[in-house]
Amino acid sequence: MGQKSSLVIIGNEILSGRTQDKNTAWIGEKMAAHGVPLAEVRVVPDIEDKVIEAVNAFRQEYDYVFTTGGIGPTHDDITSSCVAKAFDLPFGRHEEAYQVLLEYYGPEELTDARATMADMPEGASLIPNPVSGAPGFRVENVFVMAGVPRIMQAMLENVVADIRPGETIKSNTISCNLQESIMAEGLGEVQKQYDNVDIGSYPSFRGGILNVSVVLRSVDEAVLKTATQDVLDLVGDRGGEVLSEVFQVPLD
Amino acid sequence: MGQKSSLVIIGNEILSGRTQDKNTAWIGEKMAAHGVPLAEVRVVPDIEDKVIEAVNAFRQEYDYVFTTGGIGPTHDDITSSCVAKAFDLPFGRHEEAYQVLLEYYGPEELTDARATMADMPEGASLIPNPVSGAPGFRVENVFVMAGVPRIMQAMLENVVADIRPGETIKSNTISCNLQESIMAEGLGEVQKQYDNVDIGSYPSFRGGILNVSVVLRSVDEAVLKTATQDVLDLVGDRGGEVLSEVFQVPLD
Repeated sequence: MGQKSSLVIIGNEILSGRTQDKNTAWIGEKMAAHGVPLAEVRVVPDIEDKVIEAVNAFRQEYDYVFTTGGIGPTHDDITSSCVAKAFDLPFGRHEEAYQVLLEYYGPEELTDARATMADMPEGASLIPNPVSGAPGFRVENVFVMAGVPRIMQAMLENVVADIRPGETIKSNTISCNLQESIMAEGLGEVQKQYDNVDIGSYPSFRGGILNVSVVLRSVDEAVLKTATQDVLDLVGDRGGEVLSEVFQVPLD
Repeated sequence: MGQKSSLVIIGNEILSGRTQDKNTAWIGEKMAAHGVPLAEVRVVPDIEDKVIEAVNAFRQEYDYVFTTGGIGPTHDDITSSCVAKAFDLPFGRHEEAYQVLLEYYGPEELTDARATMADMPEGASLIPNPVSGAPGFRVENVFVMAGVPRIMQAMLENVVADIRPGETIKSNTISCNLQESIMAEGLGEVQKQYDNVDIGSYPSFRGGILNVSVVLRSVDEAVLKTATQDVLDLVGDRGGEVLSEVFQVPLD
């Protein structure tokens, strides 16, 4: 089994439905391409015990943990102190982070509130923030990032560079005009033939009609091709038409 | 403390970034309005142990658990059998569900694969599916729904009708042209004055400039009004301008 990553989203605004989370999809796609796929996500409220519990569960179970949200300057930004508690590390002013803020804001604009963004677990290493100054940080296998997607995405570029790439998972997707249930038995049989291909089947509505997309994922390109051909054959056998194909590994 | 709900999303396609989850925001908004707010979400892969673990953790911790995804007719649809295992209940053909499928598809179209959608934990009560026939189900405090948003949304209407409403949480939102850090200390002071108002502060980009939205949430309308006025005063004191207001509880 390869390396796996996980994500803790801190944010009442996601749970209340006020804000649509976009970080899961972004990080999921990025880490799948990097070969360290996202294996689990928790969305927790701004409650200390819940944040600590999630970080501790994931840092033991997975190779890497990302967090998004809760590192701003206001009273509801509790992520940094929670990560310190999760690791049982002292929490306080991080000199290097403070210098970054000082340079970004200048001495007059660096208010006490802004300066709290330099409070971090002792020994944390910084994650640069080219968008809005205040850095994220890393403690062991936990990467603490901002919640605003544009800022998180910029931080993630630096984070990914810090993580050893795994075997890249390639995927081929076939969408067809059959209902999922017509394909079900045949797909199950194809899946049984391939241990190292993960075959998922996703119904969706197009123009009010249920269709299905079959996604095949594997690190083994040769096997992925064979399995993809099997699914194409199955679509034909069942009298279906392929509506679209997105192949990261084209057939020969 | 009022009742709380939770959500387990079963789906490799969410974790891989292929599909953008929309169910969290939908359920979050609906349940907040119903007074039974969503308190935690887990996104887990199509792996039996992970689904069982998440369902068991949440059904003990929260008043209600929703699941979305993994109840179709294919080999990767494992949610129903996992819920049976979580409750240690026998799993097999549910007669009432089978009759629903028979009526929806007719005897000729009801293939073996489709019929597997009538396999459920013993004693489950059905959740009607007006969109695509195959029902969801309820076991105790766990509601099992489809993952396709249109189907889930239709099922949720029936689910919500089954859940005793809690005290409705009202929210007032103020967006202003100040940076979050300018507001931070003042907001912290406002928050300290009100035990039963939850004040969140959410930075965002508008036209490339960082702004902030302050969201105040409470079940107590009178207190919510007072706290909202305090935040409006704070924006003025700090030299900011209100860009937009969305008040569920208008000021007098």
